[in-house]
Amino acid sequence: MSKKADGSPVSLRVGELAELVNAEVAGSRDIEITHMDVLDRAGVGALSFIRSKRFARQWPTSKASAALVTRGMPIDRPAEGSGRALLIVADADLALVQVLERFAPTPTPRPAGAHPSAVVDPTAVIGAGASIGPGCLVEAGATIGEGTVLVHNVHIGRNARIGRACTLHSNVCVLDACVVGDGCILHSCVVIGTDGFGYRPDPQGRGVVKIPHTGNVEIGAGVEIGANSCIDRAKFGSTLIGAGTKFDNLVHIAHGVRVGRACLFAAQVGVAGSATIGDGVQMGGQVGVAEGLTIGKMARVGGQSGIMRDVPDGETWMGYPAVPMWEFLRHSPALKRLIDRREAGGEKA
Amino acid sequence: MSKKADGSPVSLRVGELAELVNAEVAGSRDIEITHMDVLDRAGVGALSFIRSKRFARQWPTSKASAALVTRGMPIDRPAEGSGRALLIVADADLALVQVLERFAPTPTPRPAGAHPSAVVDPTAVIGAGASIGPGCLVEAGATIGEGTVLVHNVHIGRNARIGRACTLHSNVCVLDACVVGDGCILHSCVVIGTDGFGYRPDPQGRGVVKIPHTGNVEIGAGVEIGANSCIDRAKFGSTLIGAGTKFDNLVHIAHGVRVGRACLFAAQVGVAGSATIGDGVQMGGQVGVAEGLTIGKMARVGGQSGIMRDVPDGETWMGYPAVPMWEFLRHSPALKRLIDRREAGGEKA
Amino acid sequence: MSKKADGSPVSLRVGELAELVNAEVAGSRDIEITHMDVLDRAGVGALSFIRSKRFARQWPTSKASAALVTRGMPIDRPAEGSGRALLIVADADLALVQVLERFAPTPTPRPAGAHPSAVVDPTAVIGAGASIGPGCLVEAGATIGEGTVLVHNVHIGRNARIGRACTLHSNVCVLDACVVGDGCILHSCVVIGTDGFGYRPDPQGRGVVKIPHTGNVEIGAGVEIGANSCIDRAKFGSTLIGAGTKFDNLVHIAHGVRVGRACLFAAQVGVAGSATIGDGVQMGGQVGVAEGLTIGKMARVGGQSGIMRDVPDGETWMGYPAVPMWEFLRHSPALKRLIDRREAGGEKA
Repeated sequence: MSKKADGSPVSLRVGELAELVNAEVAGSRDIEITHMDVLDRAGVGALSFIRSKRFARQWPTSKASAALVTRGMPIDRPAEGSGRALLIVADADLALVQVLERFAPTPTPRPAGAHPSAVVDPTAVIGAGASIGPGCLVEAGATIGEGTVLVHNVHIGRNARIGRACTLHSNVCVLDACVVGDGCILHSCVVIGTDGFGYRPDPQGRGVVKIPHTGNVEIGAGVEIGANSCIDRAKFGSTLIGAGTKFDNLVHIAHGVRVGRACLFAAQVGVAGSATIGDGVQMGGQVGVAEGLTIGKMARVGGQSGIMRDVPDGETWMGYPAVPMWEFLRHSPALKRLIDRREAGGEKA
Repeated sequence: MSKKADGSPVSLRVGELAELVNAEVAGSRDIEITHMDVLDRAGVGALSFIRSKRFARQWPTSKASAALVTRGMPIDRPAEGSGRALLIVADADLALVQVLERFAPTPTPRPAGAHPSAVVDPTAVIGAGASIGPGCLVEAGATIGEGTVLVHNVHIGRNARIGRACTLHSNVCVLDACVVGDGCILHSCVVIGTDGFGYRPDPQGRGVVKIPHTGNVEIGAGVEIGANSCIDRAKFGSTLIGAGTKFDNLVHIAHGVRVGRACLFAAQVGVAGSATIGDGVQMGGQVGVAEGLTIGKMARVGGQSGIMRDVPDGETWMGYPAVPMWEFLRHSPALKRLIDRREAGGEKA
Repeated sequence: MSKKADGSPVSLRVGELAELVNAEVAGSRDIEITHMDVLDRAGVGALSFIRSKRFARQWPTSKASAALVTRGMPIDRPAEGSGRALLIVADADLALVQVLERFAPTPTPRPAGAHPSAVVDPTAVIGAGASIGPGCLVEAGATIGEGTVLVHNVHIGRNARIGRACTLHSNVCVLDACVVGDGCILHSCVVIGTDGFGYRPDPQGRGVVKIPHTGNVEIGAGVEIGANSCIDRAKFGSTLIGAGTKFDNLVHIAHGVRVGRACLFAAQVGVAGSATIGDGVQMGGQVGVAEGLTIGKMARVGGQSGIMRDVPDGETWMGYPAVPMWEFLRHSPALKRLIDRREAGGEKA
């Protein structure tokens, strides 16, 4: 059940929700809705979401009190007084976001100042209202912006700078001299600023010797980075992540990579050293990008692709090695049929 | 060397082991065995394991005192009084498990109650005998079941519920409102309940805006999750992991995924949002599953496959894009020959 | 800006740098250089690095005070008194390493002894000069070598042994009975010694039962392991990592694997159980190696390859399933042309 800022549960009538999302109501307007849930697990008080015919068929037997549905979907309409309701909208996906924003839980409040168990170097500068949680380590010369929260056991290295209104979850490490912009969210166990993977042959011919990494990582404003992701520092200069870019979990960004603004990388993507990724690039899960390549702005890369050549601006590529999508599909007729069928049609979950 | 519960080493005669695993003994029955080791690194007192002809050929020169071997394997039998012994059994793999269970180290005992450096909210409910280790953070309204151990620096969010007899290793995070069943093992740096990767276009056309994730993660009883794995919370409702399911390290499960009971996912598997995985599904390492797909119960997926279509119950699929195994092999004759040879044959390490 | 051991910035004249790297100087020898940066972001005082014609074309408009360049690269030479300089060397890559070593930041000094918030069992043996940072947990019977640093929140299990002059970054876990050699670097959130992924069918036919893992992990001297990587303990005997081997971030090594000396594994590589990797093997990012296979010494494996057969010594393999490189290229003529062009030519970033 969702909670208001004072801890009491959120509760709205169907009629109020209908106003919020500009919906036509079929059924009762005065049903009380306390939270959202999926059709086959929902109970009384739940609002659900019907995004396909498959879900529409589950509606009659679901215990959900109400559901969002896009106008035109064939579905049984509940009668007035049935204790159930459909909220029929122009775009159920958009209405879903509006409802989620209404039901969003209040973030855990964190007290300003440093917890007694945190270790904060006296030369670090902590902004007004910032919260340094239990077990954190903030080293010499570091700066933490106003209102920023370090949840628990976070490690901020020497001379690192964290912007305002950021949230760094448990065990995040932002190492020496790295920079994080305003309003960033770093999820648990994110590691920023590890030395890159760079070695030179040992002069005695026995293995390799570590190359010093004198650069840093610079992350723009509004970036979100998924749990257990890693971004390495550059040999010199900066590994760069542009403003508004979002990474899912377990992403790897090597030394000297430049990622543009407003990119979206799904989970387990790996980008090798010195690659350049343009603004607005979207990558599916588990994509790999080889060293030094350039992916043009607004390009899209399908899941698990292996990028071994530069990708021009705006193109969609896929495969291993990756090629333009039309070429990939030529060799995967079964996949092409599947995509055609999906685009034709509505039955996708 | 293995230890008994009181800290003294386990030590068994070959004769005692033979009774345990129902073995015929070739050689001396009174040799003392203190631990297991591999043939080429074993010393006196070690029991080893011969699972193929390759290992059988190492036996004469190994320093291991004894070895488990399946009846019928061609191998030199040690003489009575030679100071060495073979334990000849119907199934060496099964006998190995029985011996490992006998030699298993006693888990580190952890004191009941909260370590003085742990931060436990007064509204949290801590079950009898539960151990809250150094540096842990347990937030308001959380519940920790009887006998559960939080090893070190574990973070339990607000209103999260952890079952009985669980072990949460160092740095595990189970965030707000997530639920973990009885008898689960979460290895180090596992993160449960991070916001899913969901955004909507910014109304001003500048990048994207985060969609609130009001749901949670629910994990059934007896689940084991490998180190550095991540399971994201649902937008609404729950990301579900069925009872008895086991994940290896570095696995990613996105928002709204439903994983059935008794599944086995090898390391680095990634499952995209809202996919449904049936009971008993087995996936090799590095498999990727695209958004919204369904993998039928008891299906098997080969390592590194990219699942882009629904997989029917009980089938074995492989490839990128994945197809039924027979179809994959048709295009990989060299691989088919290899598999045929292995199935024919015994020489696998 | 780089710092000397006493905290003051490193500053060198171009003439001094020219002596260091044995360079011919075009332009002014007395320009002061304080750090390195990339051409398009460099300012006054920066030394940059020109590794291709593409960079050479950026030089005239860059604000960098100086740059390293290999003899023979076509480039505009600055005039004496221009306030700019080129350092022309036989091998700019080698000179870069020499300069980086000169500008390398001094590692953060860590005080010897245990921080008051660390929990160190009285039976643990801590070497002279070792530093046990805030929030660390060192359990009974563990050994920490001379001069080794546990940065923050590190967990060392019972009877684990860490060599001399190691650095274990924040949140690293080295669990019971595991061994780490001298001079190793384990980056943040590395987990050594988790139980391997091994189960047997439940006798009641309901899912699977965990197989005890009585072995450990042994890591040789001079190994570096990237952030969020995992190495599992063996069922019996040891999972082995040879001296001088380097892993990038998010690597997975399963139970019972043996990795040789001086191997290099790029990020997100996964090696399944009981595989044997010879000395000097190099693997690209996201490679997967199936169970029990052998990769011969000095072999190379291209990024994202799926190894499903043994790889002979010294060969280069690629693909899914992986095959010898010449065979892979036969099926990817576009890729072959790309590689030929790169080998012919200089235009690589």
